[in-house]
Amino acid sequence: MTHKRIRIGMVGGGDGAFIGAVHRIAARIDDGFELVAGALSSAPERALASALRLGIDPERAYTSFATMAEQEKQREDGIQAVVIVTPNHMHYPVAKAFLEQGIHVICDKPVTKDLNEALALKTLVEKSGAFFALTHNYTGYPLVRHAKHLVDTNVLGALRVIQVEYAQDWLSNPAENTDNKQAKWRTDPEKSGMAGCLGDIGTHAFNLACFISGQKVKQVSADLTAFVNGRRLDDNVHTMLRFDGGVKGMLWSSQVAPGNENGLKIRLYGEKAGIEWSQESPNELWLSVLNEPTQKITRAGHGAGDEANRLSRVPAGHPEGYLEGFANLYLDIASAIHAIESGASADTVQGLIPSIDDGVDGMRFITAVLASSASNSAWQPLEVNDR
Amino acid sequence: MTHKRIRIGMVGGGDGAFIGAVHRIAARIDDGFELVAGALSSAPERALASALRLGIDPERAYTSFATMAEQEKQREDGIQAVVIVTPNHMHYPVAKAFLEQGIHVICDKPVTKDLNEALALKTLVEKSGAFFALTHNYTGYPLVRHAKHLVDTNVLGALRVIQVEYAQDWLSNPAENTDNKQAKWRTDPEKSGMAGCLGDIGTHAFNLACFISGQKVKQVSADLTAFVNGRRLDDNVHTMLRFDGGVKGMLWSSQVAPGNENGLKIRLYGEKAGIEWSQESPNELWLSVLNEPTQKITRAGHGAGDEANRLSRVPAGHPEGYLEGFANLYLDIASAIHAIESGASADTVQGLIPSIDDGVDGMRFITAVLASSASNSAWQPLEVNDR
Amino acid sequence: MTHKRIRIGMVGGGDGAFIGAVHRIAARIDDGFELVAGALSSAPERALASALRLGIDPERAYTSFATMAEQEKQREDGIQAVVIVTPNHMHYPVAKAFLEQGIHVICDKPVTKDLNEALALKTLVEKSGAFFALTHNYTGYPLVRHAKHLVDTNVLGALRVIQVEYAQDWLSNPAENTDNKQAKWRTDPEKSGMAGCLGDIGTHAFNLACFISGQKVKQVSADLTAFVNGRRLDDNVHTMLRFDGGVKGMLWSSQVAPGNENGLKIRLYGEKAGIEWSQESPNELWLSVLNEPTQKITRAGHGAGDEANRLSRVPAGHPEGYLEGFANLYLDIASAIHAIESGASADTVQGLIPSIDDGVDGMRFITAVLASSASNSAWQPLEVNDR
Amino acid sequence: MTHKRIRIGMVGGGDGAFIGAVHRIAARIDDGFELVAGALSSAPERALASALRLGIDPERAYTSFATMAEQEKQREDGIQAVVIVTPNHMHYPVAKAFLEQGIHVICDKPVTKDLNEALALKTLVEKSGAFFALTHNYTGYPLVRHAKHLVDTNVLGALRVIQVEYAQDWLSNPAENTDNKQAKWRTDPEKSGMAGCLGDIGTHAFNLACFISGQKVKQVSADLTAFVNGRRLDDNVHTMLRFDGGVKGMLWSSQVAPGNENGLKIRLYGEKAGIEWSQESPNELWLSVLNEPTQKITRAGHGAGDEANRLSRVPAGHPEGYLEGFANLYLDIASAIHAIESGASADTVQGLIPSIDDGVDGMRFITAVLASSASNSAWQPLEVNDR
Repeated sequence: MTHKRIRIGMVGGGDGAFIGAVHRIAARIDDGFELVAGALSSAPERALASALRLGIDPERAYTSFATMAEQEKQREDGIQAVVIVTPNHMHYPVAKAFLEQGIHVICDKPVTKDLNEALALKTLVEKSGAFFALTHNYTGYPLVRHAKHLVDTNVLGALRVIQVEYAQDWLSNPAENTDNKQAKWRTDPEKSGMAGCLGDIGTHAFNLACFISGQKVKQVSADLTAFVNGRRLDDNVHTMLRFDGGVKGMLWSSQVAPGNENGLKIRLYGEKAGIEWSQESPNELWLSVLNEPTQKITRAGHGAGDEANRLSRVPAGHPEGYLEGFANLYLDIASAIHAIESGASADTVQGLIPSIDDGVDGMRFITAVLASSASNSAWQPLEVNDR
Repeated sequence: MTHKRIRIGMVGGGDGAFIGAVHRIAARIDDGFELVAGALSSAPERALASALRLGIDPERAYTSFATMAEQEKQREDGIQAVVIVTPNHMHYPVAKAFLEQGIHVICDKPVTKDLNEALALKTLVEKSGAFFALTHNYTGYPLVRHAKHLVDTNVLGALRVIQVEYAQDWLSNPAENTDNKQAKWRTDPEKSGMAGCLGDIGTHAFNLACFISGQKVKQVSADLTAFVNGRRLDDNVHTMLRFDGGVKGMLWSSQVAPGNENGLKIRLYGEKAGIEWSQESPNELWLSVLNEPTQKITRAGHGAGDEANRLSRVPAGHPEGYLEGFANLYLDIASAIHAIESGASADTVQGLIPSIDDGVDGMRFITAVLASSASNSAWQPLEVNDR
Repeated sequence: MTHKRIRIGMVGGGDGAFIGAVHRIAARIDDGFELVAGALSSAPERALASALRLGIDPERAYTSFATMAEQEKQREDGIQAVVIVTPNHMHYPVAKAFLEQGIHVICDKPVTKDLNEALALKTLVEKSGAFFALTHNYTGYPLVRHAKHLVDTNVLGALRVIQVEYAQDWLSNPAENTDNKQAKWRTDPEKSGMAGCLGDIGTHAFNLACFISGQKVKQVSADLTAFVNGRRLDDNVHTMLRFDGGVKGMLWSSQVAPGNENGLKIRLYGEKAGIEWSQESPNELWLSVLNEPTQKITRAGHGAGDEANRLSRVPAGHPEGYLEGFANLYLDIASAIHAIESGASADTVQGLIPSIDDGVDGMRFITAVLASSASNSAWQPLEVNDR
Repeated sequence: MTHKRIRIGMVGGGDGAFIGAVHRIAARIDDGFELVAGALSSAPERALASALRLGIDPERAYTSFATMAEQEKQREDGIQAVVIVTPNHMHYPVAKAFLEQGIHVICDKPVTKDLNEALALKTLVEKSGAFFALTHNYTGYPLVRHAKHLVDTNVLGALRVIQVEYAQDWLSNPAENTDNKQAKWRTDPEKSGMAGCLGDIGTHAFNLACFISGQKVKQVSADLTAFVNGRRLDDNVHTMLRFDGGVKGMLWSSQVAPGNENGLKIRLYGEKAGIEWSQESPNELWLSVLNEPTQKITRAGHGAGDEANRLSRVPAGHPEGYLEGFANLYLDIASAIHAIESGASADTVQGLIPSIDDGVDGMRFITAVLASSASNSAWQPLEVNDR
């Protein structure tokens, strides 16, 4: 079998950005993609300089994403997929431009600025026939997949309680008043949408809970706060959750919790067993079967299953991390795109890749949480469509 | 200085009970008490057998707590304090009997079966002039005291978020249908009151959060569940909290979370720092000052303060545990009783010993949580009296 | 069954001492002993003050251990056992005085100043018919007993490797030049014997390895160092060990390792499984069966056996610590003394209580390690007698 | 600045190999290299198939490394460096072939089969003028670099004790008798050289201790064992170390320690502070300054220095792992090669990249350990040359 890399372009992610570089490394780790075009910045000089630094042909260093979509479509060696790593408010227009050219889209989360855009995007995706992936990257960790497997195979029995949290501390001070670009746009409703911490990391926690449990959140009761003086969006999110079938949960996300670097953590409890996984120690999954000693399952180690092993590059004890977890998403995206382009079914992996439906669900979650918080925490339904 | 032990009696705590033995060890560790009387069981044979096993003079092995209160009052060498370790519904009548004789009371938590009893008990305590301690024992851990000290001395800055949880797994199955006595009475509204998990361990979490933070909870929004089929009281408690001065929090307690043995854990976040403490690793307190590496403060070790050191018996690295934490309460209770009996002020330690006011607060918390859960999680005020 | 406390006296352990208070608490926790006499200090005033503070009848507050041995023997209510908590050089003469009166002895470790004294003491013990216990307290931890059980029941298969270490940091500076009494005598050859760190904590590590493994050390190769300028005894011990039957091991002990408070840790590896236990987290034992996930066995929790449960006072998740582990030794000592005094066999527990033979072995270990280090680490035999 | 990737070829690392894939990912992560040629296997079919799968031009898929060296040298677009990932006995001849063509060499460890080869290779490297890197990858972890920085800047004060260990369990059973290729060659003296576990992982531990401490080992006393029946090379290594200037240490490495996946761990203790780092939790470094609370320094987090930050791709709390640590070596190698090829000095990074001198030192260590073990653990000098 000859190696065929998928040609990709990137919108956003120029010098100084954070998540663009992450996507590029993730795409590179398993050598399934090559970056050949970019509209890395709307500032022409920065766009070109960034492109050169990344080894992109200057001819394909665009300053307008619209031009890029059109011209790449024309080329015989044009990109097969675009990676969108702009601030949230630019997800929708960019995705639209490429979908309309039939180019696959790999989009950072949250999917759009608001629910209406998300629903509109869903229509566009369906019409386009192109593949759309949303990079809720934490679902790519091998032991997250194994956690899902344990739930799916009923090792936990009927689920009862889900506790999920995502805490950081980098916005404990008003960093948006400094020259911190990340802080600026993430606390700016014009660029982030109506959700601050909620959209930035709360949606990751929500998505992870749904991904592992296979449950849908039916109702939320929420209490949002902006603790930092003058901050325009929430920096702390308290929510209670009611899932399908009587499962109850809590979700806490915060960006003002000193000592928390990237504290995404989930615990699920069923009638027969509980599991616990923490993003900062991603190579360990703790399984507690009732009346048995707690087991430490390790990535690629004893107790890990086929899916965790499929997504591991190195043996147990050789830690894999955030970038490898992210790369796992790209690995599955590559499989899906190859399948689709060869006319085959992408079913095997497609259910594992966060989709436009997950994006819409995330926006529904944000919408419901904002509504609940605005109504003194009254329970709000999510109205998640069946898929 | 000659050693003077305080003479105590015990109501409840006969053979087969759990918490009675804990109190006895806690009272013994620092040799500040001697157990000289007991109404250890209402079953005469068991009462006597238990007393003999504990080295109590058979003459002072009572079967009726009322008789015990009266007769001990008559003796020159009568008990100075009574320890109440009965199921919850028997706290009030027993405390009443001894208070009416002017005998000090050390009472297990929650203070009574319901708020009315608690308020009535408060009146009795005040009228009696006797000393009343409620054994929220987790406040006795040296590093819990140090955590309180860090908050009090503004190391954390203005508080913002408090996350507290107390999870266990021993009621994941319907243990009340077996011969498990603990499970039976703790899930029985006649003996426990209207709160299950909420009263049994949720109040500990509530008390701990208030003790360390010095904050009062103003409102609660709650969602209670009884997951186990046929269970008459809650076994899982989800609550959001609003404290004085804008502090927000969450409290989760559960007895159906497999893998959790006695998972009481608290995290407090302020403008300047955060702290984290877990009951299962009580000799460590984690302090994260913004923009500095997290510090591991150890009991009696570097970073621990005077109060933590006062309450430590052995050097750092020689773990102290649950019983020593409990004993610290008894240590302070002994000081208070000695002070009171010698006509001196018990002020130094009294503020650190959970009191009837904490008991009333706990019942107010239970009452508000039950009301909120019954009204689809509408926020309920606590109406905590100023003290 | 009526409660009968064993009457004990103490030699050493006056105000300002460390280990005396530990023994008193350990003896008290399970209420099996009462302290009725003491030669707590050779300074008459301090001896009396200390005794009063401990509630000892002034008449039985001795300043001479010899007088105490004689007079207590005469009393009808005389002590049944003496606890020796003096510096090492005073173990032998004190033990001798009491053994000659037929009084049981509970002696702190290391058993004597040197091997000759230890062998002489063994003869005295045998002649006296009295019971002799050496408080290698770490063997009293419930999960240490369970570790021994796992080895004994062949869960590990044939043993191969034992790694044991005991690291502290409190002698990193020349504390013996300050007014630190503990540092003074423990670094003084007149009081400690020829071994510093080796005798103080190295023997604990040695004893623990032998206790759990059931193996005898046959040869040692050692490299001792006194890192602190002017220190007269070793403060760091490096040894390689060869056990019976081909098991190999390493033992490291140090008192100059910053960050280590009381870091006693042991790992044992066999053909089929490995285990790991650390004194600073004594409520957890890690069991790794080949090709299975590592299990976390908890004291009184799932996976713990009868012996661990027999020695637990509170449920899993309610941490027990150093004092409770120490108390377990006293619990077994009480059983043994009761059995002996009632003419019954003390076999059930006696094998679990460190004895004069363990004391002699410890001195043989010290002797061999010193000899090896003095001969540029040449392997030295231990010449452990069969028992 | 335009992006210029370094052209590399690989010898070894065909389908089914382990470390070849690791090198390829490590080289790819930061996009500094492109793999354009390979002699991936001596079996022609496997060599070609592997090359195709990796996207290598079939024309440059060699079956002979000698041919590859010659032909690549001829090409204008020939490789600039070769990566050698064969079993140990093939390191020397392959390195020789490419060095003689003036092609840079990136070689897996241990450097050669024995010390003589290593010394011969050193001569070849010096004669060639080419760059030679030895992939002791664990030195690439950001917090290992920070640990070195803490030692270099005297935060620890004068060093006293170094404890290093590297334990695994995958050879607990005679895996070499199955179809496990890794087990086969690593336990075969023809392919591994005279050292088993010692060469495979013991040298990593040795290298890490020297790298961080900046100390040279002067003498070793060792006790090697092959625990598994019929095994021809050691699977457990016990050594005591004496470093320059009086520092003492222990090194344990084992491949028969159940529960250890890849347990490389190092602790260094100086007069003023101690540090601890474990490969399985590579994003944390524990720093204990005497009389201060232990600090948790995190990669890219608070307390981490410039070097750790230079080598971090993602923020603190987003774990990086084994592959990123390995990639850091490639990052520095790329800088060195660019510098050398442009005639500039590679000094900045060159001291950080394990070199032929480290390779020779590793072989001297192996030689001395084998000699010591063969002479009943007599101390053996290392005769490390000054550099």
